[in-house]
Amino acid sequence: MKEKKLTTENYKGTRDFFPADMKIRNYLFSVMKKVVRSYGYEEYDGPMIESLDLYRAKTGEEIVGKQIYNFIDKGGREVAIRPEMTPTVARMVASKLRDLPRPIRWFSIPNLWRYEQPGHGRLREHWQLNVDLFGVTHHYAELEILSLACDILFAFGASRDSFRVKVSHRALLDEFFKEGLALRSDQSHEVSKILDKKNKITNEEYISLVNKTIPENPGAVEKINQFLISKISDLSNIPGLKQETISTLTDLFKDLESIGLGDMVDFDPSVVRGFDYYTGFIFEIFDTSPANKRSLYGGGRYDNLIGLFSNDELSGTGFGLGDVTLLNFLQTHNLLPSLSNENTVFIPLLDSAHFLLCQSMATKLRNAGIAVDLSLTSQKMGKQLSYAEKKGYRWILLQGEEEIAKKTVSLKDMLNRTQEESSFENALEKISIELTK
Amino acid sequence: MKEKKLTTENYKGTRDFFPADMKIRNYLFSVMKKVVRSYGYEEYDGPMIESLDLYRAKTGEEIVGKQIYNFIDKGGREVAIRPEMTPTVARMVASKLRDLPRPIRWFSIPNLWRYEQPGHGRLREHWQLNVDLFGVTHHYAELEILSLACDILFAFGASRDSFRVKVSHRALLDEFFKEGLALRSDQSHEVSKILDKKNKITNEEYISLVNKTIPENPGAVEKINQFLISKISDLSNIPGLKQETISTLTDLFKDLESIGLGDMVDFDPSVVRGFDYYTGFIFEIFDTSPANKRSLYGGGRYDNLIGLFSNDELSGTGFGLGDVTLLNFLQTHNLLPSLSNENTVFIPLLDSAHFLLCQSMATKLRNAGIAVDLSLTSQKMGKQLSYAEKKGYRWILLQGEEEIAKKTVSLKDMLNRTQEESSFENALEKISIELTK
Repeated sequence: MKEKKLTTENYKGTRDFFPADMKIRNYLFSVMKKVVRSYGYEEYDGPMIESLDLYRAKTGEEIVGKQIYNFIDKGGREVAIRPEMTPTVARMVASKLRDLPRPIRWFSIPNLWRYEQPGHGRLREHWQLNVDLFGVTHHYAELEILSLACDILFAFGASRDSFRVKVSHRALLDEFFKEGLALRSDQSHEVSKILDKKNKITNEEYISLVNKTIPENPGAVEKINQFLISKISDLSNIPGLKQETISTLTDLFKDLESIGLGDMVDFDPSVVRGFDYYTGFIFEIFDTSPANKRSLYGGGRYDNLIGLFSNDELSGTGFGLGDVTLLNFLQTHNLLPSLSNENTVFIPLLDSAHFLLCQSMATKLRNAGIAVDLSLTSQKMGKQLSYAEKKGYRWILLQGEEEIAKKTVSLKDMLNRTQEESSFENALEKISIELTK
Repeated sequence: MKEKKLTTENYKGTRDFFPADMKIRNYLFSVMKKVVRSYGYEEYDGPMIESLDLYRAKTGEEIVGKQIYNFIDKGGREVAIRPEMTPTVARMVASKLRDLPRPIRWFSIPNLWRYEQPGHGRLREHWQLNVDLFGVTHHYAELEILSLACDILFAFGASRDSFRVKVSHRALLDEFFKEGLALRSDQSHEVSKILDKKNKITNEEYISLVNKTIPENPGAVEKINQFLISKISDLSNIPGLKQETISTLTDLFKDLESIGLGDMVDFDPSVVRGFDYYTGFIFEIFDTSPANKRSLYGGGRYDNLIGLFSNDELSGTGFGLGDVTLLNFLQTHNLLPSLSNENTVFIPLLDSAHFLLCQSMATKLRNAGIAVDLSLTSQKMGKQLSYAEKKGYRWILLQGEEEIAKKTVSLKDMLNRTQEESSFENALEKISIELTK
């Protein structure tokens, strides 16, 4: 009886990480971790599943209604697979608020899930570096977060002209809408949402949407457009803006200049950021390459994130950087290094009678911290060589009849295409020296 | 209006990994990865969500029916959060069977979920190291897997008397039941399940269960008990056992002796292993400490795992090791090192006017690969010292009024309780040297 076979395809919108893909993922994670740790950030993690309530409160309606992976568990609880990390980090920080020395510098690289129609660069799951700095109200927090956000791309080898940081302040739009255009708060909210998607719609659609939202305000589009191209120095002439907001931005830009990031950062009041969390400064980092001209990542300041859980207040600044977006950026700019198995030694097995000898060499190499693929099946040399080449191994350490008689080994260096006969100890030393180079 | 606050508790049966917990998890993972990589194993990963079909076929009924996190996605697909990694690795290997050079040595540390009643050492999610070696039919595969399984515990500092490996062969029981006791295959299956839980029930329960399952076979319990205490040398006298099975075990034990694992491994025909995957050798590793006398982990050989997906055959040998079990073992044997923030330098801020100076020192240290927590809020020295102590930082690098005037810095070593004034460059060098020690 022939049984029906299952498909080997992975679930729609997800990725299988074969070893070559996993090497890339590990490389991305290790560089990100190295940079955030160099700023004193500590790693945390929470469970993949959280109560659905956590997302109902703050996450956008579209996400909770249509995009979240929610279900009822076997105990009748409404739960969700996390679509973002912010509610989890807020919950965790709130639960230990009095015990955690401040500032709190935390990072995580969670796997996040959204039920989206998979498409170009859009998947149902991705990994996202989340960086959060809690407990600092001074704009030095913004300075650190922006400096860290840039240093991550620099650490991957990005040049200073490969990306730009666009900075604004959440209050600017609110104050301008409320005082400058006399909009109601629901209108402000709607117009903000239109601005957030302005780059994805035509100019006609944009104008029509604004006019439909605030019909009583016919000249609004021009005023908004004027506002969107204002410079820092124009801010004091814009009606409705508070002096505090202007000073925060002015001080931030002055200090960005001082720490050498002046050339990377633009003030851009058109930056909105989709999320409702943000209450202060916001930023987005854009790829400058025409092939990948999109927002890479962004973040900002959120001043009442733990309010869901606690009456205490805690100010936070942070950002999130997705692995798919980052990988696109690195590929666009040709920044991905080759990641092979070049640190591994292959020990072929030509005759089963020699297995224990080969095994003992493998153990000695492993004890010296060297990775060894020990052949478990005796085969002709040609077949084993071809396997070692396919695997991309750097060295082949051989002990055949001849070498056994002479108490030597032959070490083949696949990179430099050399072969040398020596004692096993000399071969081990040679490999060790190459590996620490 | 006072709004109702959400609970800060995590979802039942899960864990929040605060930085101190995450350091432990990272330590466990890094040691495991180092050892498996030293054997040439490559890391892979698959999605957290798979089609439910993947688990229906091979996973035990109890798991699919009661313990799996399954739900219907917004597109009407029956999906599940992975309760184990084996179906995923089988799917992935089957999908690239012709492209993958053999043997295939893969590992992963996935997060796995089961809906269980949380209790002592039982959670709803855990992380599990999965190690698989595909494409080797010779018992050298068993040898490598057992050697690797032991080396993982040795790498954590486990002594040779802290654990024992118990080895058997799946065919032994089958052959003994079929030929020696003349059981039908459904009876064999039932009796195997009883043996698997023998240690968790009383002897009376065990006897009664066996007699109920095979009432037509009154002397069975004694014969089974006799079988369960047999040694390798007894096997040839047991009715029904095939010579092939006996030879495999005899050869394996001889080679285990030769590679120096003879003192760690016992033959024990009472090892059953719950899973239906196994078709050949099986093993379990037990903690020898009376405080934690339980199976730590185990594995075995499965010869038709990819049969669900393909008509090709591929033999596999492997094991799974859970993080909770491993942590219990390390704690029982006092093997967990202290994992602090001892590599981090703290730069206090005594006066906002000095921020840019401090910031520039931080950048130089970070560029030299040193982690720095730069204070973003100017505070009195006492408060900052107390913060640095709470965080467990090794060094405090201070540039106050005095130091600025003299163009020096003061470096306080919290470990050795010393303080030295020098140029910034000297301080940086001193820290670098200490960090590479």
